[in-house]
Amino acid sequence: MKQEKNIPYKIYLEEQEMPQQWYNVRADMKNKPAPLLNPGTLKPMTAEELEGVFCKDLVAQELDNDNAYIDIPQEIRDFYKMYRPSPLIRAYCLEEKMQTPAKIYYKFEGNNTSGSHKLNSAIAQAYYAKKQGLKGVTTETGAGQWGTALSMACSYLDLDCQVYMVKCSYDQKPFRREVMRTYGAKVTPSPSVTTEVGKKILAEHPGTSGSLGCAISEAVEQATTHEGYRYVLGSVLNQVLLHQSVIGLETKAALDKYGIKADMIIGCAGGGSNLGGLISPFMGEKLRGEADYQFIAVEPASCPSLTRGRYAYDFCDTGKVCPLAKMYTLGSGFIPSPNHAGGLRYHGMSSVLSQLYEDGLMEARSVEQTEVFKAAEEFARVEGILPAPESSHAIKVAMDEALKCKETGEEKTIVFGLTGTGYFDMYAYEAFHDGKMEDYVPTDEDLAIGFAGLPDMK
Amino acid sequence: MKQEKNIPYKIYLEEQEMPQQWYNVRADMKNKPAPLLNPGTLKPMTAEELEGVFCKDLVAQELDNDNAYIDIPQEIRDFYKMYRPSPLIRAYCLEEKMQTPAKIYYKFEGNNTSGSHKLNSAIAQAYYAKKQGLKGVTTETGAGQWGTALSMACSYLDLDCQVYMVKCSYDQKPFRREVMRTYGAKVTPSPSVTTEVGKKILAEHPGTSGSLGCAISEAVEQATTHEGYRYVLGSVLNQVLLHQSVIGLETKAALDKYGIKADMIIGCAGGGSNLGGLISPFMGEKLRGEADYQFIAVEPASCPSLTRGRYAYDFCDTGKVCPLAKMYTLGSGFIPSPNHAGGLRYHGMSSVLSQLYEDGLMEARSVEQTEVFKAAEEFARVEGILPAPESSHAIKVAMDEALKCKETGEEKTIVFGLTGTGYFDMYAYEAFHDGKMEDYVPTDEDLAIGFAGLPDMK
Repeated sequence: MKQEKNIPYKIYLEEQEMPQQWYNVRADMKNKPAPLLNPGTLKPMTAEELEGVFCKDLVAQELDNDNAYIDIPQEIRDFYKMYRPSPLIRAYCLEEKMQTPAKIYYKFEGNNTSGSHKLNSAIAQAYYAKKQGLKGVTTETGAGQWGTALSMACSYLDLDCQVYMVKCSYDQKPFRREVMRTYGAKVTPSPSVTTEVGKKILAEHPGTSGSLGCAISEAVEQATTHEGYRYVLGSVLNQVLLHQSVIGLETKAALDKYGIKADMIIGCAGGGSNLGGLISPFMGEKLRGEADYQFIAVEPASCPSLTRGRYAYDFCDTGKVCPLAKMYTLGSGFIPSPNHAGGLRYHGMSSVLSQLYEDGLMEARSVEQTEVFKAAEEFARVEGILPAPESSHAIKVAMDEALKCKETGEEKTIVFGLTGTGYFDMYAYEAFHDGKMEDYVPTDEDLAIGFAGLPDMK
Repeated sequence: MKQEKNIPYKIYLEEQEMPQQWYNVRADMKNKPAPLLNPGTLKPMTAEELEGVFCKDLVAQELDNDNAYIDIPQEIRDFYKMYRPSPLIRAYCLEEKMQTPAKIYYKFEGNNTSGSHKLNSAIAQAYYAKKQGLKGVTTETGAGQWGTALSMACSYLDLDCQVYMVKCSYDQKPFRREVMRTYGAKVTPSPSVTTEVGKKILAEHPGTSGSLGCAISEAVEQATTHEGYRYVLGSVLNQVLLHQSVIGLETKAALDKYGIKADMIIGCAGGGSNLGGLISPFMGEKLRGEADYQFIAVEPASCPSLTRGRYAYDFCDTGKVCPLAKMYTLGSGFIPSPNHAGGLRYHGMSSVLSQLYEDGLMEARSVEQTEVFKAAEEFARVEGILPAPESSHAIKVAMDEALKCKETGEEKTIVFGLTGTGYFDMYAYEAFHDGKMEDYVPTDEDLAIGFAGLPDMK
C-alpha cells in the first residue's frame, strides 16, 4: 500500500479537537431557506405553533437563520465522545486498485451501533426533550437507521421512545426491530390501531404494508395527543442539518490538520441530513468567498427529487398533517418504486439544500441501483468496510470522478461521506449477487401524478 | 458523565505507536505447551508433516517456543492500519450506572466489517498463503465471524477463499453468508458432496444439519486434495494466539501511555484466540516476575472445557483427521447443548491457555446465557455498543467483579476484551426479549460421554 508521508491512513482527531459548537450554514446564506408554512393559513409557522409538535429548544434552532455557531451542550459532547470523532479515511487501496491520480478521502460514520450518522441528531433531539422535562418522544422509521439511533439516545438518557416502523420493514427487518428493543424502545408496526389515523388507514386499506408517510402521521398524532411527548424527525429539518454539521466540522478539522484542500465533496441525499451536515462548513467558506468547492448530491434514479423534481411548497408527509416546506419535491403523493436504499426514498429534500441547489451552489446526480451495488462491492473488497446502500450512492459518484481524473491526469482531492454500514441490508446484496436486482426509473407520466398532488398555494 | 482528567474516553494509539512485532508468550513460559501429536504414531508432528496442511511460515510460527518477538510483515501492518488501532474505552457510563468504585476499561475489537477480532489472524494467515504462492485457502465457519474475516483478508490479497459453513448456520444466518459472498468467498453448506468425508456423512446421516467438526474435516480434505491450497483455522492454534497478541500489545501500550495499571484482565474463551491474544503481554510480565495480574477466562456453562474438562490429549475435530492436541477438553465427541454464543461452542481450548491454566496462572469461570444477555443488554443501553453473545460473557464477569468492588470499596482496574458486535445475533436477542431463552448445563453423565471418547494414549 502506497502511503503519503506524514498523512495517516485514518485521521482521528484528538478528543480536545472535537467541535464544541455546531455550525449553522443558514447564517451565511444570502438567500435563506423558505420558512415552514401553516397548511391552513399558508403563513409561516410560529414558534408557538411548532412547539405543540417539537421540543422548545429545537424549534428555536429550526427558526434560527442568524447565528452561525451554536454551542453543543456538554451532555451531548459527552455522548459524542462515546463514538466520535469518526475517522476520515484515505482510500489508498481504492486509489491503487483504480490506478487513479485522484486522492480520495471518506468520512466514515458507521462506527457506532446504530450503524449510521443518524445518532448525531438523535442524541441532540433526545437531550432537548429530556431538558424540557418530557417523558418521551415518538418517531417513525423506514429503513430503521433513525429508529435505532433514537432508541440508543433515549436509552442513554432514560427517555421513553416510541417508534412507528413501516409494517413491511417491521416484518422484513426483524433484526432492526430487535436492536431497537434491546435499547428499550417500543416498536409498533404502522399502520396500527394505536392511533386514529392508523385505524382509518387500516379500515380503508386492510392488509396494507404501510408507508413512511403513514408512520409519520401516526407518530405525530401519538405525540400531540399524549401529555409529555413530542415528535422528532431524523432528516429534512433545519435543526437536523445543524446537528449533523458535526460531520463536516470534524472533516474540515482533520483536513486542515494535515494541510489538505478538498476539491469536491460528495454525499448521498435522501432528506439531506448527511449531505447537509457534511458540506455545511465547506459551503460556509464558499458562501463567504473564502474558498471554492464542487458539491455533488447523489440520489437514486428511482427517487430523483433534485434532478427531476420541482422547487415548490409541499407536504412533508403523505398524510398531510405536517407543515408545508418549500423544497425540491416529487410531490407527497409520489410512490417511489422499490429501491434497496430505503433511506433515500423520500419525495422531498431539506429546504436548506434545496435553496443552495436552486442558487447553483451545489450539483446533483442520479444513479441506478445495480451500478451502486457494483461500486459498493468493489469498494468493500479493497477498503474492507461493508457500506450501506444509501452510502454507496456517494461511493459510485466518487469512483466516477476518480475515473475522470484517471483520464485527464488531474490529481483532484475527492471527499465523500460514508454514512453507514450495510449489515442489515444483506437481502439487497443477495439480490445483487444473484443477478435479481432491477433498476427502476420513473417515467415522466409517473412523475406527473406526484406533481399533480402539490398543494395549491393561491 | 464523570471523566478522569487527562484520560480520554477512548484511547486511540497513534499510527506510529502500533505494534511492529507480535509477542509470543510461549517464549516466557517455563512449562511449554505440549506439542501437537501425529494421531498415527503419537509422536510430535514435524514441520514437514504440518506443511502438508498448513502454510510453511505459519508452521514455523506454530512450532516456535523460543522467540519472544516476531516481526509483523509490512503488508500485514498496512492492512492492520485499515481498522486498527482499536480503541481502549473507559466504561465511564457503566461505572456510573453501577455506582462502582472500579475503573472498567474494554478493548473493542468490533470496529471492522467482520465485526470481530478474527481479522487479526485472518490477514496474517492469508498473507503467508499468498507469500507461498498458493492459489487459495480453505476453512470452516460456525457462527460466521472467522469465515467473514478470512473472506475479507483473501479479497484484499486476491486469494481464493473456500468456506465450509455448518449447514444449520448457512440456513439460519443468510446475512453472514451474503457478507462472505460480497467479499468473493465461495461458501458451501457442510456436509456437502464436494468432499469424500462430506458424502460419507450425508450417506450415514441424511438430513443432518452439520457440525463444526464435520466442516473442519471437509475443509482439510479440500485443502489437502487440491494443488495450491492450504487449510487455515481461526482459533486454538499457537500461531493464532501469536497474531492475536496485537490486541494485548495495543491494550498495554494504551494503558502505559496514561500510566494505568490493570488489576485484572477478563476475556471470553472458546478456542482461546481472543483471550490468549489479550492477556499475552500481561502474562509475559507475570511470567517474568515483573508485574502481577489476575486473569479470568469466561466460558459458557453449556460448554465448560476449562471449568469441568480434563487436561488431556484429544482430537481437534470431530472427524478425527487433525493432529492431537493436549488441552482442557470435553472430548471431541461432546455435543454442546444449543447456546447462542456459537463462537464459544468448542470442545477444547488452546494448548497455551490450557498449560497456563494448569499451572495456576489463570482462573476460569462459567456463566449461563440468560445472565450473559442480561449483562449484554445493560451494557448496550449505557455504553452504546451492541455486543456479540461471545463477548458478553466477559461483560458479565467484569460487571460481577465491579459489583464486588462496590461491596468492598476497592478501586480495582478491570480490563476486559469486547471481541465483537452482535448485529448477526439478533435472533438470540429476540429470544431473550421474548423470555424464550433457556439455560443448559450438561450433567456429569453428559460429560462422561465426551470423556469416554478421549483417545487412548498408551
